[in-house]
Amino acid sequence: MDIDVTAVLAGARTASRTLAVSGELLRRQGLESIEDVLRAERTKVLAANAEDMEAASREGISGALLDRLLLNETRFEAMLKGLREVAALPDPLSEMRKVGTRPNGLEVFRRRVPLGVLAIVYEARPNVTIEAASLALKSGNAIVLRGGREAGHSNAALVKAAQRGLNQAGLPTGCVQRLENDSRESVKQLLQAVGGVDLVIPRGGPQLMAMVDEMARVPVIRHGQGITHVFVDESADSKMAEEIVFNSKVQRPGVCNALETLLLNRQWALSDGWPKLARRLVREGGVQLRVDSTSATALAREGIPCSAALESDYRTEFLDLVLAVRTVPSLGDALAHIAEYGSHHTAAIVTANRQNAERFLQEVDASCVLWNASTRFNDGGELGLAAEMGISTSKLHAYGPMGLRELTTEKFVVCGTGQVRR
Amino acid sequence: MDIDVTAVLAGARTASRTLAVSGELLRRQGLESIEDVLRAERTKVLAANAEDMEAASREGISGALLDRLLLNETRFEAMLKGLREVAALPDPLSEMRKVGTRPNGLEVFRRRVPLGVLAIVYEARPNVTIEAASLALKSGNAIVLRGGREAGHSNAALVKAAQRGLNQAGLPTGCVQRLENDSRESVKQLLQAVGGVDLVIPRGGPQLMAMVDEMARVPVIRHGQGITHVFVDESADSKMAEEIVFNSKVQRPGVCNALETLLLNRQWALSDGWPKLARRLVREGGVQLRVDSTSATALAREGIPCSAALESDYRTEFLDLVLAVRTVPSLGDALAHIAEYGSHHTAAIVTANRQNAERFLQEVDASCVLWNASTRFNDGGELGLAAEMGISTSKLHAYGPMGLRELTTEKFVVCGTGQVRR
Repeated sequence: MDIDVTAVLAGARTASRTLAVSGELLRRQGLESIEDVLRAERTKVLAANAEDMEAASREGISGALLDRLLLNETRFEAMLKGLREVAALPDPLSEMRKVGTRPNGLEVFRRRVPLGVLAIVYEARPNVTIEAASLALKSGNAIVLRGGREAGHSNAALVKAAQRGLNQAGLPTGCVQRLENDSRESVKQLLQAVGGVDLVIPRGGPQLMAMVDEMARVPVIRHGQGITHVFVDESADSKMAEEIVFNSKVQRPGVCNALETLLLNRQWALSDGWPKLARRLVREGGVQLRVDSTSATALAREGIPCSAALESDYRTEFLDLVLAVRTVPSLGDALAHIAEYGSHHTAAIVTANRQNAERFLQEVDASCVLWNASTRFNDGGELGLAAEMGISTSKLHAYGPMGLRELTTEKFVVCGTGQVRR
Repeated sequence: MDIDVTAVLAGARTASRTLAVSGELLRRQGLESIEDVLRAERTKVLAANAEDMEAASREGISGALLDRLLLNETRFEAMLKGLREVAALPDPLSEMRKVGTRPNGLEVFRRRVPLGVLAIVYEARPNVTIEAASLALKSGNAIVLRGGREAGHSNAALVKAAQRGLNQAGLPTGCVQRLENDSRESVKQLLQAVGGVDLVIPRGGPQLMAMVDEMARVPVIRHGQGITHVFVDESADSKMAEEIVFNSKVQRPGVCNALETLLLNRQWALSDGWPKLARRLVREGGVQLRVDSTSATALAREGIPCSAALESDYRTEFLDLVLAVRTVPSLGDALAHIAEYGSHHTAAIVTANRQNAERFLQEVDASCVLWNASTRFNDGGELGLAAEMGISTSKLHAYGPMGLRELTTEKFVVCGTGQVRR
């Protein structure tokens, strides 16, 4: 293993032992100090981000990805607000719940404990750096951050500030560390650090997930890609369908819960609702439509620009203003399409038919299924978890947004008065 | 992949889809039919087990392991009783809990769903076969069983009976299947069946766990070995310590929650309690003691037989009437020993000192920590979970005995009235 990775993991393990027996007060003070230092170093951090943005523009990185990289005054403030919100959350580790008293008098409890050392491999989104660090610290875990190459300067500045904050609060800087090595090799080393890492959270597309399948030797919770679907059913209200689809696709196209494939019930695709929605997506949203032949008919008639969808479009997370569209004869076909092409992330149905909604909500195997709401709501904050460490598309331990509780586990604690087993 | 394994997994996947949309009634009928068929085929099953027992004796398998293999009338009845108890448990899948209503009116729920296809790799304990199958069926999962070679005839008879029961209830026999190939190769194939298996539960010793570290490409929850500790503190009541240690070691030495290493506070080791306990372990329990020099002193004086412990004894899960003993100067040293040699399974402290107990219960990182009670209580039934699928020594998803709930996950279900994100 790389010397850098070995040293970082050793520091994280030591720090995690301190954290596991630390009180809530100390961890909260750590978060408060980090906020103070970040506030003081705002200019430095924003300048580092400007450097990253410039380099990315030079490399020709596209609009939606550039948007993810950007840290401006507003987002910096939102980051600090998020940090304060995490600090104010109830301590997940103080929870010791009584499961019951056994007939023999044994008292059985479950006590919530940190996982230990976390590692997160993530895209070039600097706001994730502080969000992940704060969730780890609040839940008593040390964290190793391996962010996207494009955000290197931003992340270096952010982690340096966080470590200064930890130091001021009397906590080891090993609690929050960043891997400077941003090669694929460093990801492999994290994935294979048996005993060194208790959980790796990889966030990213199919390449990263294939690497995880092949390489991971440590426990992993995937934040896989979001091949996100909306199905507009026959009975859907046209105005509601339009608002939900437009918002799901356009409001922030570069993130994982943005819509990628729109499925249209055939009857609805022949109604006036579809060309009206398509026109708005194209004119107001600047969306490129990739459509099948049935949904193309109405668009051609009304002169709305579109191109023919390839099968591969239905397997693509565009993360951009591109939308694949497919017409299906029935709800059953929509369910079959999602089972085949979906990535267990997010799927929504727009329908006035409760029975159809219930079938959709039961049968779709995704971390979040929605009825008459935008896919953009599959998000920790929007679902009421406060900040999130990612959205799990694995089923074990967490499925959907991961908050503080998902970064902990429970052990059994049993108190007796000399009981033995007969 | 082996044709056998491929076919078994394909059958399991199809069956899991049927199960995921099946009602509770059908699944319960399946369990009842399995019980009926088992009852009718009792003689056949016991004869198959007798064949396994005979072969194992011929191979010179030791007492505690033979005991795990045995299925007699009493254990057969206990197996059927366990099956009925699982059938009577509340349906874990009917649970849909409301998480909250968001300020925008969105209603957020979490709905419990099966994991899909489970596989369990286990030791030669035929009662585990029916316990695992019943938990899987009750929780809506298909299961592939890969039991220890020595139990081959028993498991074949049990699974045949279970499949007849499923068939009678109108459920696919793919719900419960057994891998006939009992080579290490079949374990490897299960561990690498990405997309074919949703969770593998390996139960066993260090060799199997090393194989899991190296080979696993699918989610795994380890039921690792139990290097189980009892620490007798200075203030321990001698009679209580004696009863707890004797029971932890002797009551069923062949199972994972049986005591393997006894840690003695130095003062206690010099008291009368220790030779009294040691004499009982040796004379009444037939236990071989492997002791360090401090604890040997009193034994030598009283002529109690023992041998010198090697460092490797502290790393061994004997699963037999052998006990490693070590004297430690303080609680801190006991904690350090457990951190170094323990396997995150079970640890108990016997003490009258509440402060010491609390420190032990907080600091020991094990799936179950006990105060003044036998280690044999780290068991699903004893802790109030009814049957268990194993005892997780991994921290993710489950830590400690895994019941029905640990075989499921929760997805987010969101109901709206047209909400979009601003």
